[in-house]
Amino acid sequence: MRKIVYGGAISFDGYLAREDGSVDWLIDSPGSTELLKETWPRFDAMLMGRKTYEIALKMSPGQDASSVFGNMRAVVFSRTLEPTSRDGYEIVGDNAVEFARSMKSEDGKDIMLMGGGELANSLLNAGLVDEIGFNVQPILLGSGVSAFHQMPTQIGLELKECRQLGSGCVYLSYDVKN
Amino acid sequence: MRKIVYGGAISFDGYLAREDGSVDWLIDSPGSTELLKETWPRFDAMLMGRKTYEIALKMSPGQDASSVFGNMRAVVFSRTLEPTSRDGYEIVGDNAVEFARSMKSEDGKDIMLMGGGELANSLLNAGLVDEIGFNVQPILLGSGVSAFHQMPTQIGLELKECRQLGSGCVYLSYDVKN
Repeated sequence: MRKIVYGGAISFDGYLAREDGSVDWLIDSPGSTELLKETWPRFDAMLMGRKTYEIALKMSPGQDASSVFGNMRAVVFSRTLEPTSRDGYEIVGDNAVEFARSMKSEDGKDIMLMGGGELANSLLNAGLVDEIGFNVQPILLGSGVSAFHQMPTQIGLELKECRQLGSGCVYLSYDVKN
Repeated sequence: MRKIVYGGAISFDGYLAREDGSVDWLIDSPGSTELLKETWPRFDAMLMGRKTYEIALKMSPGQDASSVFGNMRAVVFSRTLEPTSRDGYEIVGDNAVEFARSMKSEDGKDIMLMGGGELANSLLNAGLVDEIGFNVQPILLGSGVSAFHQMPTQIGLELKECRQLGSGCVYLSYDVKN
């Protein structure tokens, strides 16, 4: 079965982005490019919430959504955007858990869960996330979009890899014990 | 000048303890005893909030506060407990920032800031914390006592050490760029 992997870059105090979605604080590290090269080929789809989608578009000015997400199947969950399915991306209403569960049973490579924290929370709670892997950045951001929200139960993790990426960044990846 | 070091064990989603203060979820790792042995001798004082103080007492049944904190000068900040100064520990009213600033300029070894998050937040905001060092545990706790609260400004960190402690625990320590 396809695995869902929740990951990205995170401040040491647990934020994915500033309140306004900006990620100007991210530190580029020598090892991060290599890490992306290694890990990206295992995925052919990505899941994200509306805010993460809008941030991705904002970071690629002048490009339409199809080209931003390249060859990946990009699924955006949103209660407010009009549901649509276009070349390369689709916008799906508020049934993220069932949609993700169904996607996992389809044929394909693994699925990257981009966030934000609310979407990740739903999928973690439903036991659908198989791995988490974050580039822990050397900063306390103080406020922003949280990677993890409150959950009714704890979830055990098993460390897979701890890798220094340079520039003070550390990649920590775990299997989720569902 | 003496350094203040904020540290402890933390879940991957940023909690120091469960809501009720319990730390039964902590994983004992082979390297953590060695780490404590190496780092503890640099300290001769510790700072903590009232809740952390009460947890420390609860974890040492049958012992009074003087024996719990051993040879360390233990300073407890509390708005509710009666201020007191006894053999080995003292309870101080709500002037943590000024008290800590003054302690830093006194002679002595470094000072361990035990938490919780509210106290750490005050001292981080005041630019009084010199290092942070956490044993990142392989668990998403879901809720509890947060190690970091919202802050008005970001704080840069510089990675000092990244050490695998075994059992999936990773020690990350940073210099704070004040």
